[in-house]
Amino acid sequence: MKIGILCTGDEILTGKTVNTNYSHIAKCLVDYGFEVNWGSVVGDQLKNIYHAMEVAASLSDAVIVNGGLGPTLDDLTQEVAAKIAQVELELNQEWLAHISSWYHSRGRIMPENNRKQALLPAGSELIDNPIGTACGFALDIHGVRFFFTPGVPKELYMMLDHEIIPRLQNLRGVSLYTHIKRFHSFGIGESRADKMLTKAAQMAENSQIKLGFQSHYPQLETKLVANTTTQDPPEMMAPIEDDIRDCLGNFIVSEDDLTIEGKICQMLQESESTVSIVEMDTAGLINSRLHACDEKGDLVRIGFFMQTMRDFHDFFQLPIDQWTQPVVTKRVASLTAQKNNSTYGLSVLTERYIDEREQVGIEVHLAVAKGGDVKYRKSRLPGSPNWTRLGAVELGLDFFRRSLAGLPVHELIDFEQH
Amino acid sequence: MKIGILCTGDEILTGKTVNTNYSHIAKCLVDYGFEVNWGSVVGDQLKNIYHAMEVAASLSDAVIVNGGLGPTLDDLTQEVAAKIAQVELELNQEWLAHISSWYHSRGRIMPENNRKQALLPAGSELIDNPIGTACGFALDIHGVRFFFTPGVPKELYMMLDHEIIPRLQNLRGVSLYTHIKRFHSFGIGESRADKMLTKAAQMAENSQIKLGFQSHYPQLETKLVANTTTQDPPEMMAPIEDDIRDCLGNFIVSEDDLTIEGKICQMLQESESTVSIVEMDTAGLINSRLHACDEKGDLVRIGFFMQTMRDFHDFFQLPIDQWTQPVVTKRVASLTAQKNNSTYGLSVLTERYIDEREQVGIEVHLAVAKGGDVKYRKSRLPGSPNWTRLGAVELGLDFFRRSLAGLPVHELIDFEQH
Repeated sequence: MKIGILCTGDEILTGKTVNTNYSHIAKCLVDYGFEVNWGSVVGDQLKNIYHAMEVAASLSDAVIVNGGLGPTLDDLTQEVAAKIAQVELELNQEWLAHISSWYHSRGRIMPENNRKQALLPAGSELIDNPIGTACGFALDIHGVRFFFTPGVPKELYMMLDHEIIPRLQNLRGVSLYTHIKRFHSFGIGESRADKMLTKAAQMAENSQIKLGFQSHYPQLETKLVANTTTQDPPEMMAPIEDDIRDCLGNFIVSEDDLTIEGKICQMLQESESTVSIVEMDTAGLINSRLHACDEKGDLVRIGFFMQTMRDFHDFFQLPIDQWTQPVVTKRVASLTAQKNNSTYGLSVLTERYIDEREQVGIEVHLAVAKGGDVKYRKSRLPGSPNWTRLGAVELGLDFFRRSLAGLPVHELIDFEQH
Repeated sequence: MKIGILCTGDEILTGKTVNTNYSHIAKCLVDYGFEVNWGSVVGDQLKNIYHAMEVAASLSDAVIVNGGLGPTLDDLTQEVAAKIAQVELELNQEWLAHISSWYHSRGRIMPENNRKQALLPAGSELIDNPIGTACGFALDIHGVRFFFTPGVPKELYMMLDHEIIPRLQNLRGVSLYTHIKRFHSFGIGESRADKMLTKAAQMAENSQIKLGFQSHYPQLETKLVANTTTQDPPEMMAPIEDDIRDCLGNFIVSEDDLTIEGKICQMLQESESTVSIVEMDTAGLINSRLHACDEKGDLVRIGFFMQTMRDFHDFFQLPIDQWTQPVVTKRVASLTAQKNNSTYGLSVLTERYIDEREQVGIEVHLAVAKGGDVKYRKSRLPGSPNWTRLGAVELGLDFFRRSLAGLPVHELIDFEQH
């Protein structure tokens, strides 16, 4: 079954916004075993959208249209869909009630122009959007099933998973089950991972399982995808997973939907521990990552940000002779745990450098303290301030994850100067 | 002059690679005043590429094709171009010599399959690629000029700037200049802004200036775009800008490339001031936003994160009778400024709530202190934890921006409960 994707909107047509919705839709379809055979982008002009829908209908067995369902005048998708299907727009009372209660629950009154979002081509099937005011809908155009989806990414993602994919599977007739396994790692680049996983790749190829990488700096995702006609995953799935775990080893920070910060919070909760955090250039980013996973608010105690090592030295009233970066970093980790009555103290202290070849970067000093025990590590990340800040956040989280899990903290990562 | 963009390759069709080449080409064309009217993506199948070129030729005055010029078997672009133009492929001796010397200068011998990269449709114009082995070429197909470009980003970028844009300008005959004006606002939703700017929209329409919105919650961007044949912006541009400034008023946080945090840092720098920040649920996100703009590291002094109002009450040793949220928020702002020797103290303290209708949200208490002067504001943001956290970060930054600029801090925003 061939599927076309049509993305609308001046912002993506003119390149102002990178079209990540397209890649998300395509990847999702491919993961579920559909063939994507055509993608197009048009702006917010009635004539162009009309023509793009005609082309899409002529090429594919089903089409996913993204965007143009908003309340403003340049949101034209419903209008064009009605025109091409030669039907009228009708007010969908069910959806109008939904929008109005959406506003009501937020203590607001629905603006009049949001009414437009409940106008659907006659004969459309309404597709639910539990988290927004733009509903999706499905409609036959020239005998091809069109699915219309909102442009807001999280609304699109949810609608794809829960509404569109099941409908496409019904259309396809045969039930295909998709089995996906994901490993998130930190510290290994894509080309090294590719080499490390030669055996797994061979095993996957032999058993028609797809092995792929996706790098979102500073993490790398390694993914296995298999489609089967029965509910069980293919027999070879588990041995390949084991091989990946063996090869990537301690660099794997989490699997599937779990994040590195989620994993850390899980470990803190299981050991009934808490942490207090001090940061410099990461400026609260480590703290906020952990806090967002700390649902009950009882794991992350306190966070401090200061600009310089000297600030910390003064704040914690360290003796003047304890003035080297490793000593300050370790003492600060101990003292923050002790003063804030938390099990762990984590300090991620940083200094920018320019080396003899005029390369810039960040030197990261990491310490984690628990009672009298203090672990320390130093690392140099070359690159621009924004780039190395991302690296330092992840390095800090990974250093803490390894400490909690009792793994070695000194294994070199690909992004640091060796 | 309407230009279409056709990107080829399985990696982008299936969403494995995000199509940043597309956005780069489109943005570059728009900046030079060309109209991009159509974009498509197809995989590495001869039939689909052929069909996509036919569609592109039928829609645009010129087409840029990206990808498929490599040495491997799935690089089919030249072959399809020759077929559709009904000409033969010919070996371009000049380019063959270039490839071979490219390898030679790297101490290597040209692999036989690179020869394929010098095969061009008869009658093509060769387009130079000084940094790679894939040349570009131009060819008329069905009377439309097609420009073929390599998929490697830096080769594409260079070829666009130095080779393709000048050729397109020649084709167009006239020089067009593009004028873009952007306003970033916080606190007004897209539908309300649409209503507030009816007059500006009318003025823009009358003078062929495009007015559009882009909402990235919790901010909204309002943009004017005009193309002219002389270097000056159209006469009506300035009056429309003034009208937008009048209508959106204090809700405008910054213009063009400036961000709200950049604006705040600018104001701090101009008044030689510093700030210390205390946060709860925003957990360091306000601090890190400001820190990233604080290039010299002398504006943001210190940041504190704690989990509860009680933690702050204890940390700052407030008397037991000073125990209401507004009092704690204000005292903490004053004390953090005072203790850390900074001009301003900003406190953004938060508590989750469930109201009588079981709606969840966050109550935000904001205070900014300077010397003896303390401003306070309270707000309720309904919604999920992640959603309201984003809102609280922006509300905190905006509250501080307004305080620094001497603007009223109590104007209601669309996202809060009224």
